[in-house]
Amino acid sequence: MKKVAVVMGSDSDLPVVEGAVKVLKEYAVPYEAHVYSAHRTPEQAKEFFSNAKKNGFGVIICAAGMAAHLAGAAAANTTLPVIGIPMKSSAFGGMDALLSTVQMPTGLPVATVAVDGAKNAAHLAMQIIALGDDELAEKLERAREDMKNAVLEKDRALQEKI
Amino acid sequence: MKKVAVVMGSDSDLPVVEGAVKVLKEYAVPYEAHVYSAHRTPEQAKEFFSNAKKNGFGVIICAAGMAAHLAGAAAANTTLPVIGIPMKSSAFGGMDALLSTVQMPTGLPVATVAVDGAKNAAHLAMQIIALGDDELAEKLERAREDMKNAVLEKDRALQEKI
Amino acid sequence: MKKVAVVMGSDSDLPVVEGAVKVLKEYAVPYEAHVYSAHRTPEQAKEFFSNAKKNGFGVIICAAGMAAHLAGAAAANTTLPVIGIPMKSSAFGGMDALLSTVQMPTGLPVATVAVDGAKNAAHLAMQIIALGDDELAEKLERAREDMKNAVLEKDRALQEKI
Amino acid sequence: MKKVAVVMGSDSDLPVVEGAVKVLKEYAVPYEAHVYSAHRTPEQAKEFFSNAKKNGFGVIICAAGMAAHLAGAAAANTTLPVIGIPMKSSAFGGMDALLSTVQMPTGLPVATVAVDGAKNAAHLAMQIIALGDDELAEKLERAREDMKNAVLEKDRALQEKI
Amino acid sequence: MKKVAVVMGSDSDLPVVEGAVKVLKEYAVPYEAHVYSAHRTPEQAKEFFSNAKKNGFGVIICAAGMAAHLAGAAAANTTLPVIGIPMKSSAFGGMDALLSTVQMPTGLPVATVAVDGAKNAAHLAMQIIALGDDELAEKLERAREDMKNAVLEKDRALQEKI
Amino acid sequence: MKKVAVVMGSDSDLPVVEGAVKVLKEYAVPYEAHVYSAHRTPEQAKEFFSNAKKNGFGVIICAAGMAAHLAGAAAANTTLPVIGIPMKSSAFGGMDALLSTVQMPTGLPVATVAVDGAKNAAHLAMQIIALGDDELAEKLERAREDMKNAVLEKDRALQEKI
Amino acid sequence: MKKVAVVMGSDSDLPVVEGAVKVLKEYAVPYEAHVYSAHRTPEQAKEFFSNAKKNGFGVIICAAGMAAHLAGAAAANTTLPVIGIPMKSSAFGGMDALLSTVQMPTGLPVATVAVDGAKNAAHLAMQIIALGDDELAEKLERAREDMKNAVLEKDRALQEKI
Amino acid sequence: MKKVAVVMGSDSDLPVVEGAVKVLKEYAVPYEAHVYSAHRTPEQAKEFFSNAKKNGFGVIICAAGMAAHLAGAAAANTTLPVIGIPMKSSAFGGMDALLSTVQMPTGLPVATVAVDGAKNAAHLAMQIIALGDDELAEKLERAREDMKNAVLEKDRALQEKI
Repeated sequence: MKKVAVVMGSDSDLPVVEGAVKVLKEYAVPYEAHVYSAHRTPEQAKEFFSNAKKNGFGVIICAAGMAAHLAGAAAANTTLPVIGIPMKSSAFGGMDALLSTVQMPTGLPVATVAVDGAKNAAHLAMQIIALGDDELAEKLERAREDMKNAVLEKDRALQEKI
Repeated sequence: MKKVAVVMGSDSDLPVVEGAVKVLKEYAVPYEAHVYSAHRTPEQAKEFFSNAKKNGFGVIICAAGMAAHLAGAAAANTTLPVIGIPMKSSAFGGMDALLSTVQMPTGLPVATVAVDGAKNAAHLAMQIIALGDDELAEKLERAREDMKNAVLEKDRALQEKI
Repeated sequence: MKKVAVVMGSDSDLPVVEGAVKVLKEYAVPYEAHVYSAHRTPEQAKEFFSNAKKNGFGVIICAAGMAAHLAGAAAANTTLPVIGIPMKSSAFGGMDALLSTVQMPTGLPVATVAVDGAKNAAHLAMQIIALGDDELAEKLERAREDMKNAVLEKDRALQEKI
Repeated sequence: MKKVAVVMGSDSDLPVVEGAVKVLKEYAVPYEAHVYSAHRTPEQAKEFFSNAKKNGFGVIICAAGMAAHLAGAAAANTTLPVIGIPMKSSAFGGMDALLSTVQMPTGLPVATVAVDGAKNAAHLAMQIIALGDDELAEKLERAREDMKNAVLEKDRALQEKI
Repeated sequence: MKKVAVVMGSDSDLPVVEGAVKVLKEYAVPYEAHVYSAHRTPEQAKEFFSNAKKNGFGVIICAAGMAAHLAGAAAANTTLPVIGIPMKSSAFGGMDALLSTVQMPTGLPVATVAVDGAKNAAHLAMQIIALGDDELAEKLERAREDMKNAVLEKDRALQEKI
Repeated sequence: MKKVAVVMGSDSDLPVVEGAVKVLKEYAVPYEAHVYSAHRTPEQAKEFFSNAKKNGFGVIICAAGMAAHLAGAAAANTTLPVIGIPMKSSAFGGMDALLSTVQMPTGLPVATVAVDGAKNAAHLAMQIIALGDDELAEKLERAREDMKNAVLEKDRALQEKI
Repeated sequence: MKKVAVVMGSDSDLPVVEGAVKVLKEYAVPYEAHVYSAHRTPEQAKEFFSNAKKNGFGVIICAAGMAAHLAGAAAANTTLPVIGIPMKSSAFGGMDALLSTVQMPTGLPVATVAVDGAKNAAHLAMQIIALGDDELAEKLERAREDMKNAVLEKDRALQEKI
Repeated sequence: MKKVAVVMGSDSDLPVVEGAVKVLKEYAVPYEAHVYSAHRTPEQAKEFFSNAKKNGFGVIICAAGMAAHLAGAAAANTTLPVIGIPMKSSAFGGMDALLSTVQMPTGLPVATVAVDGAKNAAHLAMQIIALGDDELAEKLERAREDMKNAVLEKDRALQEKI
């Protein structure tokens, strides 16, 4: 199975980005996690993104906040699908990171998920990988069933509370 | 090769969404284009999204404006990757559609591209399909080369103008 | 008297949505409260909304946050009036939910109240029900009188404080 | 059948508000249309809203732009359901009117529709009236069928174009 | 000397509005403080604003949050200058109240100060009153001198700290 | 009667600011209009504002766009009431000018009116001047009556149109 | 004298960016203008920025729109001062580009000017260069004088018009 | 070496602005720190900015919040490069200060850094000073190397954690 890369711009993003890692672990999807900064380690970031495909990665997840350029730097250096997680930071609730991540120019998309949406980045990565992996695809189908049942169970519980 | 579905919420979105269709045609990626509304044809939309996988689709692109629920409705009914194009409309420059598309709950990601980013939705869909199709992957690599050369050509042209 | 449905997208919305339930109880308006998610239980949600009218409901209140599609899903599946409560969540103060709820396409209105405005959703539901129920209408008139008097009392109290 | 009041804050709102009037006419719902300003004719507005119920109105639609207080003034003077149409104006795309209309205090809801959503205000008003009028309720059901068929027809037409 | 009216839409605004009252007291400017709501006590509010001039008021300060109509209601019922304080509330940092207060239609201005700017509302009121009261005008001039000296003192203190 | 100063930051603001001048002329209120820039002519601006009081002005209106500092510069150099008109410019619909004008620090208020609200700036100035001029006060009362009648006339006209 | 680099992300930015070039020409400041894209020509951009210092540049101006990463890419690859011009594009009035440009992480500043502020980027570049060039410094002082006189002339002209 | 001026509008800004002072100290760049307010001490501020050049300053850093005019006041009174730090305050996350600082008119740029970006203001100031000081330039190059190594170290540490 192709690996998922989870790259964060700063290790201060880890508490949120961990959500992606946990999901990938839970589904037994191989991954690597890295701290690379588009601005502080531009060459290492470029190196990593440029070689991602030949190093066995299928999808790249990038998490960054403020003027969030990391996912864009990935998109500029690979034709693999790149998923961007805009990180919330103190000033604008993550609007800066959201716009910096999603508003990419033609030919260089970043698949953007919700602010701090690390778990969804992992789910999206798995949906992409699952196109070539029936076992993972089935797991994702079953997870939907579980999600549905969890909500229905909450609805039942609510009937007793209210 | 798996097909790409291009679904728009209204045929008034066609002038922008056409951009996605043109890109897919240019790269000879099989696709179907449809008008289905999450609100006006909820059953037909659900039907289409639920059966997309078994009908040979690999990725679903959804374009919608304002309270843009179409991509979310797709995500709710398939485990295929869903790409959302937030359409600009008159009041808020597409901010309503962007937030309605990107801020999805855990487990149900929508891979959101820029406002009116129909071409990028097609590029992202092709990057995903290309994970299982080496020929398409090569085309995408060559396209990057072309993009690069176009910019360098513009830089040369600029030298004469300025 | 027709019942009011109070549907929330997640049981984490309950602390706010409870405000609606309390108001309905206080006015002895019959209601049911449910957890259904437009994205996690799309079929159960559709089922509930489609049958709401014949099951004796007169108004449907939907509370959801972020890319808030629940009220829109209700509006798509019933011609009963649908009231939307945009829930505040962490990133954008509820602006995402507000725009996702209010910016509905022609023919499918959602009667949107303030962010976290659960109590007002209940009041609006009762104003609608009261069109066919004089007793409830009178209660609402009396409540206005009470609200007025509470303010006037606060004004009197202020005179002693300041 | 109870009448619908359509009140606009300025006759410059008419080109948009006309959309509401046309819908009401089409469905043969009785209405009155007025120009009253919360700020320029506060007494006449109050007079109209206070007497709306006894004058046979069931729902009040208010359209206003900028610091849009008209719907709030209606809500303050009647317990009938009040629908607010935030009008787009030049500076902020209608965000000023949207927030001025939707963010009402507890006990005084305004059922807010989309910016410039005059047609939806009429649809919402009819959904409310239809709770006590089966014939209108049936018309609304049929209209949904028509909307659905119009989308499906557009989908068919698209197949020939693309 | 003409009195300043300080009207707040809810007594929950008092902790901020108190700032205005304290400033007026400090400068020995006569005032009255009231709780009147544009929506809950529309008649009492109208009554107060309509009679403000003949009751000896020269300026009216109104503080309100969310869909802040109180200052507008004052402006509609008097030709005295009306000062609006947009109150910050939980969802949008006071942007709703700011736009609801400042975006008034032609002929009915509200002199808007900063979000939660109660002290500045009092200062503005005093600047207006001072046009007809030389003693107050002199106090305001001296206050400027004091403000200046306080800053210069802080600059001197900083030199020792840094 | 005290004069009103109408100062604009650039003569490109004139088409909007003219609205203020016309209103003042119509009410026969003495005024001077000037182009002074807080940034390009800081000394002349300071000179003008510092001497405004002794030169017979009672109120200062300042119109500026973008990082609109002109009204703040006036407030810093006089204790006369200062009215700020945030000018709409191309990028943010005037939000930059609105926030730059209204969010003043304690002790230095700017009475802010709506974006491009030049006429309202004049009305506010006249309400202030009228505190010491009964004739002007009466004119303002009559203008209210005229505004009211104009709306009522439009309401009558509407009855024939719709 | 050190050269100023003027780099734009796309030649569609030229009509605005030309403003910077004209200003530099007018002041006889040596410059080079280029089209390099952070995303389409990441290596050429990096190459240019990395070598800018040794190639005789003193300041780098970067203009880009939407998810504007160009200035950030410059900042990541040089310790020369980098000036960012956020370009207005269709959806958000340039807010996306502004936040993408200005919200840079610690240690990697981008000196951001106004949306579409190409001329100001040139002025800022010249202020920086002028620290080591007295002749240029004098030109800038004289330009201030000219700006001041232009405003004063407009003020005089206004006196005749109004 | 030319000095850097660090001016803040209020001593309440010190906890953030201290970041700039620390950075300058660390690099042994001479500086002065001051509290001057554009509004409370307009003359002292003007005096300081007008004489900054002849007093040996090379760059001026200004920190201010809300309607942040301080950097603009500096720009109006010197042709030295002026760096603006928009301070976050309670209502709008610093958007008011950002727009008040960055949206300067032609000819009077303010080099704006991120909200609360005091450290970056110091870095930008040093990049400017370093154009004429090779030793400082080398320090900045080495700092980049340090930043890069810190990130790479964090990446190594992450491999053990995850």
